[in-house]
Amino acid sequence: MSGSRSSGTSSYRRLDVARRRAQLIRAALGLFAHRPPEDVSLDDVAAAAEVSRPLVYRYFPGGKPQLYEAALRSAVEELTQCFAEPQEGPLSRRLSAALDRYLAFVDEHDTGFSALLRSGSVVATSRTGAIVDEVRRGAAEHILAHLRVPEPGVRLRMAVRTWITAVEGASLGWLDEGKQPPVEELRDWLLDHFVALLLATATGDPQTEEVVSRALAREPADGPVASLARRTMTLLTRAEHLLPAP
Amino acid sequence: MSGSRSSGTSSYRRLDVARRRAQLIRAALGLFAHRPPEDVSLDDVAAAAEVSRPLVYRYFPGGKPQLYEAALRSAVEELTQCFAEPQEGPLSRRLSAALDRYLAFVDEHDTGFSALLRSGSVVATSRTGAIVDEVRRGAAEHILAHLRVPEPGVRLRMAVRTWITAVEGASLGWLDEGKQPPVEELRDWLLDHFVALLLATATGDPQTEEVVSRALAREPADGPVASLARRTMTLLTRAEHLLPAP
Repeated sequence: MSGSRSSGTSSYRRLDVARRRAQLIRAALGLFAHRPPEDVSLDDVAAAAEVSRPLVYRYFPGGKPQLYEAALRSAVEELTQCFAEPQEGPLSRRLSAALDRYLAFVDEHDTGFSALLRSGSVVATSRTGAIVDEVRRGAAEHILAHLRVPEPGVRLRMAVRTWITAVEGASLGWLDEGKQPPVEELRDWLLDHFVALLLATATGDPQTEEVVSRALAREPADGPVASLARRTMTLLTRAEHLLPAP
Repeated sequence: MSGSRSSGTSSYRRLDVARRRAQLIRAALGLFAHRPPEDVSLDDVAAAAEVSRPLVYRYFPGGKPQLYEAALRSAVEELTQCFAEPQEGPLSRRLSAALDRYLAFVDEHDTGFSALLRSGSVVATSRTGAIVDEVRRGAAEHILAHLRVPEPGVRLRMAVRTWITAVEGASLGWLDEGKQPPVEELRDWLLDHFVALLLATATGDPQTEEVVSRALAREPADGPVASLARRTMTLLTRAEHLLPAP
């Protein structure tokens, strides 16, 4: 009887430990999201979580670097979920939904996002670099799965990977510009960028061409890809001298 | 007389100092270009420059970090020159020439280039980060000058800046893929990417539309932009349901 009671207590304690840990990580992430990491102290985290500084140290004996990494891992889990979209409906709708979630994350963690991705920031170490690379790889795999390409060639891989880099760069630029243009415009532009890049890649790579043709066939006539296609045709048609005589 | 002789000697010495310094930087850059920075020692630099280790220290009392930064500054000067192309002829030809120089630089400094730009690499500090940002800003200014836009709006700035990030990401990816596809294909693809991104941006931004129309008008009918335009038209025309009924 006493054995089972003690095991109950210890499982209660484990839950308590996990809960407390999560609470501290949440408090840390809230601070790291909006302040440069060098301006966040363990005292701040303790105050935000309404606990004592020694308690923070009991859970994170490695101090701030350990807490930062834990907060980062928790952010990364959230970020990776952005691209986990059901594989149904037109690709543009799925990508648009994923971008909405991703950009909401960037908006919500602005300072922390910048600090992490700026080359040479105080928090960018080989460990955080590896964690960020994991997110990039995960996002690329999600996108290739949406494109239904089990064995992507080098050109298609390069296109997807380059677009992910571009999304990251554009997000940092958007933060630098004081979150201009409005986030919906940024999302639509990133989607247009994806379509334009895949189209350009398709013109020189049979695998990408097949993927693009299949994806275009599923796009609705009143959707964003149709709109981009029509607007692009109009622009190109105006540059008559570049096109073959009809 | 003795005064003028001593000044002659000292100017001779200054030249000697400058030459020696340049020689050490060249030797260091040669090593940092092809080995991870942690695998380059001051002894290696001394051996490559055929001088003694104390002499390296006399010129670079800050040791390896100082030498690395000097080598980086010298590389950055070379890199910035890549985009200094005369503002004549079709934009595609100028950009293609700039990309050729840029990619030759990446090819020649492969390991050093990766080490510098990987987030969290041992050499990426806030100082090197600032130097790399300088190159990015310089490249963006060059490109906007080629586009003849004295006051670029937020969308055009974002497009140019995002493309530069994409070029960087694609270069890293190209190195990761063992320099595949061939460098000429990578260059043509990056040029196509630029045109496709500007076209997509133009469909939603009057300033970019004006820039693009002006640039398209100067492209030759047998050039790469004409080829991309025709191939894109063919692909889009096949997705009939997206286009308005003729």
